[in-house]
Amino acid sequence: MKNYKLTIQYDGTRYSGWQVQGNTDKTVQGKLQRVLSLLDGGEVEVHGSGRTDAGVHARGQVASVKLQREPDCALLLDHCAAHLPQDIAVIHAEVAPERFHARLNAKGKRYVYRLWTSPIPNVFEHRYLTQITEPLDIAAMRQAAEHFLGTHDFRSFCGLRRFKKSTVRTVYAIEIEQLGDELRLSYEGNGFLNLMVRILTGTLVEVGLGLRRPDEMPAVLEALDRSAAGRTMPPEGLCLESVTY
Amino acid sequence: MKNYKLTIQYDGTRYSGWQVQGNTDKTVQGKLQRVLSLLDGGEVEVHGSGRTDAGVHARGQVASVKLQREPDCALLLDHCAAHLPQDIAVIHAEVAPERFHARLNAKGKRYVYRLWTSPIPNVFEHRYLTQITEPLDIAAMRQAAEHFLGTHDFRSFCGLRRFKKSTVRTVYAIEIEQLGDELRLSYEGNGFLNLMVRILTGTLVEVGLGLRRPDEMPAVLEALDRSAAGRTMPPEGLCLESVTY
Repeated sequence: MKNYKLTIQYDGTRYSGWQVQGNTDKTVQGKLQRVLSLLDGGEVEVHGSGRTDAGVHARGQVASVKLQREPDCALLLDHCAAHLPQDIAVIHAEVAPERFHARLNAKGKRYVYRLWTSPIPNVFEHRYLTQITEPLDIAAMRQAAEHFLGTHDFRSFCGLRRFKKSTVRTVYAIEIEQLGDELRLSYEGNGFLNLMVRILTGTLVEVGLGLRRPDEMPAVLEALDRSAAGRTMPPEGLCLESVTY
Repeated sequence: MKNYKLTIQYDGTRYSGWQVQGNTDKTVQGKLQRVLSLLDGGEVEVHGSGRTDAGVHARGQVASVKLQREPDCALLLDHCAAHLPQDIAVIHAEVAPERFHARLNAKGKRYVYRLWTSPIPNVFEHRYLTQITEPLDIAAMRQAAEHFLGTHDFRSFCGLRRFKKSTVRTVYAIEIEQLGDELRLSYEGNGFLNLMVRILTGTLVEVGLGLRRPDEMPAVLEALDRSAAGRTMPPEGLCLESVTY
């Protein structure tokens, strides 16, 4: 039995998210488990660094899996390329220490949310962009984002109503870059709550639209109440870029 | 009645090509004509710079169309953004001289064929790439491409069996660039025959694979026979980048 660390890319458009749920086979974890079970000659369990929601993409999701047949990494990659659908790919595989666990050992994550600000639709990348055609005050968005840096209780930015575990997280960096007609928001932190990146982005967009002021952000955090924050942005603009260990 | 010059992008994946054919509504020209007829209150005819085949994309197709209601270009763009499907967009519109015709006045075209050379599939752009995982000798491909520059009878590279018109064309430039795992072949010329770019690319790929030598290319041209040239590459890697007037 060897333990493997896999780096995975997917276009989440067709999937109901990372995590296997009930009977649905429309999950990325489900597809990977099926393809790797075929290779290993028995059921396997793939542990992701965390869930991504329905429609969310990944350029660098990480997962761990134990395989009894101990295949070569090159063989494993070939097998995955041959059997996975076109919208899921294992882009890197390595043998990991026996105790490595993709979720429990994750130290940080980087997410990117991509906005398309032109009224002319983007024909080639619309699956990966959320279009906002109203003008955005980017300087105000950057000011507002500063308030989220550091360690806070992000309960106002959590999509779940019940909190079994801590809702305290540390955000290391938020960058807002203009790349032609695209506005790209990058978030780095030690972890993110359910829907947190999409609610942070929605709140920053509302600042950009002039619906909120940057200096209102501390009060939004302090409210510890979802209704104090802004809209939840749609999933298609979001991508899990990388996980650090 | 005003004449308009439109620049159009499309993801050709879902379409049976540019040109309206019989009953099928699955053409880009058909979609544009329907949406512009709605704006103009009557049937309109959209003339493209040329046909693109089923599955081929465009970043800069150009078309001309006469509209009796003489709409503002901004209104025309808004109308198209609101009514066209997500995989077709009019990205620029301007009023053109009365006699401007997108096909008859075209002076040159630029096409790009994108190859993906990694065994790891490209999850986000597979619709726009053709994967070739065998190693390619790029220096040999560049040598072979030099033989196609200039004015030649490209009958060996034409997909049609009957030639009503001249099969002589001038190729101004062929560039072969390596961009990470992507190999991008760009073609500039005064015009291209049916399937010509895909057959040129297929022939260059066969050179890259070592199946043909660069110095065999003059004989391929001189044969004036489709069977002398290489394979026709699949449509998804091909994109009409721009048209010059």
